[in-house]
Amino acid sequence: MNDQEGFAISVEEAEIGYQEGGVPIGAALVSSHGKLLGRGHNMRVQKGSAIHHGETAALENSGRLPASAYKNATMFTTLSPCDMCTGACILYGISRVVIGENGTFLGGEAYLKQRGIEVVVLGDKKCQDLMGKFISEKPEVWNEDIGEEVRVHSKEAKA
Amino acid sequence: MNDQEGFAISVEEAEIGYQEGGVPIGAALVSSHGKLLGRGHNMRVQKGSAIHHGETAALENSGRLPASAYKNATMFTTLSPCDMCTGACILYGISRVVIGENGTFLGGEAYLKQRGIEVVVLGDKKCQDLMGKFISEKPEVWNEDIGEEVRVHSKEAKA
Ligand SMILES: [Ca+2]
Ligand SMILES: [Ca+2]
Ligand SMILES: [Zn+2]
Ligand SMILES: [Zn+2]
Repeated sequence: MNDQEGFAISVEEAEIGYQEGGVPIGAALVSSHGKLLGRGHNMRVQKGSAIHHGETAALENSGRLPASAYKNATMFTTLSPCDMCTGACILYGISRVVIGENGTFLGGEAYLKQRGIEVVVLGDKKCQDLMGKFISEKPEVWNEDIGEEVRVHSKEAKA
Repeated sequence: MNDQEGFAISVEEAEIGYQEGGVPIGAALVSSHGKLLGRGHNMRVQKGSAIHHGETAALENSGRLPASAYKNATMFTTLSPCDMCTGACILYGISRVVIGENGTFLGGEAYLKQRGIEVVVLGDKKCQDLMGKFISEKPEVWNEDIGEEVRVHSKEAKA
């Protein structure tokens, strides 16, 4: 599959999450050969989970893989990745992270680049509208998901 | 509970993991008031999981918590945290990470410090011996767990 198809799956996952009453962030992990390795969405509400975010859910649903499987792989995600998901992409040596939007939240993009990962931000309005809607509907769930008491727009390192 | 008790739980978790045939890394998350929030161990082998490491398993087993619950909390872990677990501790604003050993593997300690988290390394021989034994017994499982094809001792950013 191409980038457009990979990204479309992440959006589909976000929409499923929203329909389930959850945090609407979706992700898809696609290999260098264009094969879908795994897809998933945030499961905080659905599973009471602190670690199943979009990107980590896609990794989890990809199952156990050798390091070579992640080589030159792309993580498609509807929202700028939080610090945990940033670290997960670094751990597995994913080469590229394609992000729907970073207007509602800016995560670890600078650190991804610092660690040699290509970052592409699409500025997708559909993703931004869905997150904006969710945050206005359930601000406390969203704050909990990013480990904050009040809304923040960025958790990038100040350094 | 005090630090000694918190760390002992992480070691207990690592030993349970080893007995189950898994990657022997354990963790315990303890609140500022000394309450155990959650404990867990790496579940790569047991659950075919790519994201249930020691620290993330402890976070997952702590359930959904508001940001305030993590304030001044300590993550006890038997091994230097990988990039994903490093990011998970940063995401939730954990204040201190107490590490059994970093001789078999050096993870994101420098980045934790850069993000304002206190890092304590105990240099615990028991932890180091258990990891060393596991790595020599199942090197391919260990490499997979840290996203590498061959053994590396450090994944710290070169920068
Ligand atoms: Ca905070
Ligand atoms: Ca690598
Ligand atoms: Zn995340
Ligand atoms: Zn880890």
